Formats: sequence, structure tokens, C-alpha cells
Amino acid sequence: GRNEIMSNIYDTAYELEKNLREASVFTELSAAYTAMREDQVAFELFEEFRNVQIGLQQKQMTGEAITDDDVASAQAIAERASGNEVIQSLMAKEQQLSQLMEEINAIITKPLQELYAPAQD
Amino acid sequence: GRNEIMSNIYDTAYELEKNLREASVFTELSAAYTAMREDQVAFELFEEFRNVQIGLQQKQMTGEAITDDDVASAQAIAERASGNEVIQSLMAKEQQLSQLMEEINAIITKPLQELYAPAQD
Repeated sequence: GRNEIMSNIYDTAYELEKNLREASVFTELSAAYTAMREDQVAFELFEEFRNVQIGLQQKQMTGEAITDDDVASAQAIAERASGNEVIQSLMAKEQQLSQLMEEINAIITKPLQELYAPAQD
Repeated sequence: GRNEIMSNIYDTAYELEKNLREASVFTELSAAYTAMREDQVAFELFEEFRNVQIGLQQKQMTGEAITDDDVASAQAIAERASGNEVIQSLMAKEQQLSQLMEEINAIITKPLQELYAPAQD
């Protein structure tokens, strides 16, 4: 029945959360994040990088133009951050998890993708 | 082991996709979408609305400024579209599914949210 299917959805989502938490791609990211937090130089670079990203996202969301200066300073901090070994390890793990999350998202949103795909007529 | 957990993740994601496809929130959206496609007036409004949205998203992604005219024309087509009963039903179902997808997303990204939450120290 209707409620049974809805309860299956939530059960399955929580099961997926549990699987993700146990996956090495997540436990290794967690370890890389802790290592970064414990390294003062890396942590400062990480925070600076994150603040620039948040600033750019806010401009995008409010429809404000992104200037050449914005782009240049984002590139500069991105280069400095990725030159740090601790941050580099963290970013590599983030990239792996991000790929996995994209795959999962592609799987679970497939019914919607199919629905809105242009009709072949 | 490592591979077992990864295979669980994909199995669970496919199970979730199956659950979603069977849920009334999805089958009702699918029916509302078909009804809209079969109604010429509604379909034209839908396409016009979608094109305006895609235009705005492209501006956001390229960092181009969104003008007052852009906002005004987006609001105008949104009002015309939501005044159409067939589109209104479709949008209501889209809203329901969107809420469910947000809940699912919140569940499965919880490990990540916790990892990046500001430390309480």
C-alpha cells in the first residue's frame, strides 16, 4: 500500500546513509579532514579558500556579476591551497566522495530524468 | 570488506530508485506530466517557463548579472503558467516530489554535514 512504499523509501535512505558512513571513501575523508584541522597552516588556507567560495556562491545566488578580480583572487587561493600537501590529500578524498555521491544521485533521480527527457516524437 | 560495502551502496541506491518509482508521489507526478504534454496551451506555457528558467540558470553559472528585466519577465511567465490549471496540478506534484527528494538528500548527506559542521570548541 501507499504508506508501506513511503516507509520503504525512508528505511532504504537510512540504510544508504549507514552504508556511506561505513565506506572507506568516507572514513578516509574523515581522517583527512581531522588531519587538516590539526595543521594550523593547512586549516588557515582551508578557511580562506572556503570563504572565497562562499562569497562567489552568494554573488551567483543574488544574481550579482562576478568580476575579473573575483576570479583572479579565487584562482590565487585555490593554487595556494592545492600546493599544501595536507589540503591536497583532503581534496583528493573529497573528489572521490563527490564522484560517489554524483553516481548515487544519478541512480536515484533516474525516474525523474526519464520523465522530463525530451519526447522522441 | 571494502568491496562488500561499496556493492551494498549501489544495491541500496538501486533499491531506493525502485521505491521512488513505485511511490504515489512519483506515479501521480508522471500522470500530471502526461496530462500537461497532451494539452497544447499548457505545454506551450510550460516550455516558455522552462526556457526562461534555463536562461537565468545559465547567467548564474557564467557569473553574468541578472537584470531587472530578466526578473520581470521570469515573474510574468511564472504567473501566466501558474494560472493554468493543468500546470498548477503538475507544479503541486513537482513540489511534493521535490520535498521528498530533499528529505532523502538530507538523510544520505548527513555524514558529510556532520563532518563539515563547525567544531563546538
